[in-house]
Amino acid sequence: MIYLDNSATTRKKPQKVISEVVRGLTQLSANPGRSGHVASLKSAIEVGNVREKICNFFGMEKPENVIFTQNCTDALNLAILGTAKKGGHVITTAFEHNSTLRPLTYLQSKGIIELTVVEPKNKNCITKEDIAPYIKENTYMIATVHISNVDGAETNIDEIGKLCKENNIIYLVDAAQSAGHKLINMQKQNINLLAVAGHKGLLGPQGIGFLCINGNFEILPIRFGGTGTESINLKQPKQLPECFESGTIALPNILGVGAGIDFVLKHQKEINLKIEKLTKYLINELKKRKIIKIYTDENNLNGVVGFNISNIDSTIVSEFLNDKYEICVRSGLHCAPLKHKYLQTTEQGIVRASISYFTNEEEIKQLLFAIDDFIKTYYL
Amino acid sequence: MIYLDNSATTRKKPQKVISEVVRGLTQLSANPGRSGHVASLKSAIEVGNVREKICNFFGMEKPENVIFTQNCTDALNLAILGTAKKGGHVITTAFEHNSTLRPLTYLQSKGIIELTVVEPKNKNCITKEDIAPYIKENTYMIATVHISNVDGAETNIDEIGKLCKENNIIYLVDAAQSAGHKLINMQKQNINLLAVAGHKGLLGPQGIGFLCINGNFEILPIRFGGTGTESINLKQPKQLPECFESGTIALPNILGVGAGIDFVLKHQKEINLKIEKLTKYLINELKKRKIIKIYTDENNLNGVVGFNISNIDSTIVSEFLNDKYEICVRSGLHCAPLKHKYLQTTEQGIVRASISYFTNEEEIKQLLFAIDDFIKTYYL
Repeated sequence: MIYLDNSATTRKKPQKVISEVVRGLTQLSANPGRSGHVASLKSAIEVGNVREKICNFFGMEKPENVIFTQNCTDALNLAILGTAKKGGHVITTAFEHNSTLRPLTYLQSKGIIELTVVEPKNKNCITKEDIAPYIKENTYMIATVHISNVDGAETNIDEIGKLCKENNIIYLVDAAQSAGHKLINMQKQNINLLAVAGHKGLLGPQGIGFLCINGNFEILPIRFGGTGTESINLKQPKQLPECFESGTIALPNILGVGAGIDFVLKHQKEINLKIEKLTKYLINELKKRKIIKIYTDENNLNGVVGFNISNIDSTIVSEFLNDKYEICVRSGLHCAPLKHKYLQTTEQGIVRASISYFTNEEEIKQLLFAIDDFIKTYYL
Repeated sequence: MIYLDNSATTRKKPQKVISEVVRGLTQLSANPGRSGHVASLKSAIEVGNVREKICNFFGMEKPENVIFTQNCTDALNLAILGTAKKGGHVITTAFEHNSTLRPLTYLQSKGIIELTVVEPKNKNCITKEDIAPYIKENTYMIATVHISNVDGAETNIDEIGKLCKENNIIYLVDAAQSAGHKLINMQKQNINLLAVAGHKGLLGPQGIGFLCINGNFEILPIRFGGTGTESINLKQPKQLPECFESGTIALPNILGVGAGIDFVLKHQKEINLKIEKLTKYLINELKKRKIIKIYTDENNLNGVVGFNISNIDSTIVSEFLNDKYEICVRSGLHCAPLKHKYLQTTEQGIVRASISYFTNEEEIKQLLFAIDDFIKTYYL
């Protein structure tokens, strides 16, 4: 099997990620922060270390502002529903994933917020110029994806961060596809909320994400329950991170993603070089086949390559690749419907090949061979 | 170390739980239900098998009504916030955990629901008679714990289930402490919503819980995002389970809890016998020490034993046990403040020793020895 669906979940995990999950399961099964005994304290220290690691990795101010969630979607929900301001206005873009669009649409449908969905001028980049004209007096949040999961298009988050800072607007960045590939510094880049998946570029297990909070603004819990703090209080306590982490947190997965971050830190350069090299190779090779439409800009080397073969339904292509070659790519709409409307690919969908550090050139060659076979099969 | 905090998280997991988590991580890292390729389909089949297992284990009608969540608290939030009826009335009890009380209190504070918190007549059991007098025309839900996490007190869920059925009221049961110890059959017992922790009696990893839904009533999502279904739709689709499982689910943990359920099924009798035997032994031994107040009824053998040494602050006792003997018990309020108010232990808290299948008699003896040492140290 050749797995090129790393934008969904990176297939291969570093050995240390697996051993850390196992260590969590076999040596640290106790509830961090729920008791004063040695087992609980040991696990709390380990979780605290990962919070510290994440805080440093993303240039945050305080480790207690790392909120562990089930996945990146959960983090985006906390960010969006937790900051919702009755009568307020949010700006987002047509390039977003449903994990941003659906909670925002929910708030809009309930009459809680006004929502503007911006169509960026350039298909390869969301810029400050796309957003700025829509800022109003009641705009309290701008939410953009960092790297598109459809075609790897990269947002100019530096510019938009500055824009948000100047206008005292919360900046929420969906880093599902970028964390682990792109360096992110929340303080320097004026990002207030960063939603991260643990199981993609950070190479951790499925079942962990986090929301990083930076700056002073109100964010309210969206889940309620035991926090191990102020047990006497029937209202959710305000202390971070407990306030947002009701119930037992996913300790083995937290240790796993901690090991993933260590791996990324150690191999950052190689990871970027390899993903860029393989992306470039794939785009260049696809370009040689005139029948192929490529949606990813040739200068965009983020490991997410969107293409179609002529006007063939993307699912027919992905099924061929899977059935004949056991090559796993994703087709269809990738949970990003407005991006497809924008690219006029709603009917056809897009074939997406996505690359991780553990992908190798031979696998890309196999993909190209299989694509050529498809073209021959259908066009000769 | 002697770990007697199994009500928080069972410390030891069966070997198969660990190997299943590892198999999930190393062989099945792909998003179930997000694509048509072989990797995704394989993982979807595995997740489906666990859903089927849970469905059978808890006597549900449909496996697609098993909703995977981050933990039991998350499941309770979905159950409570997802069914909230403006102007409706909910009955719960003073024996509940904050994971039930806090979401209900939140709904009450927002003026969405009317809430009645019943004080059961018998400290050892919530009965139909406690609840029935409070049913009103607008009562749409009754929420009770199955086994109290403070003292193991067991609710008569059969009776209350019937009461709910007769009155067409949704019955929500918090099975955090009971699943894996007590046989539960949602259909036979007329339970509509069952919130379960994966990492306690089911012996799975931390970071997985689920909500089992049985019957016909409206439940709305509380998180929004990609579901892999109806991607074109900016509104959350209605199909179960995807509707409630936005984002990537915790595949390795799901496999882990599946293996935990297999273990419980295979060893159900031994598990119950062992927990009952050790609970009985501990209660009987504690009873011999006249200075000890026992909160757990002697006929209640659910593995959760609450006690205090005279009027000594429970935390002083737990710290002594931990510091001198590395015995892990929990003290304080156990996130169940109204239960403590009821038992008049709000100031003192309660020392809780909780037993799992992997606890042995020698560990209980050590606990008793350490308690005797405490008594000598403070009273001789």
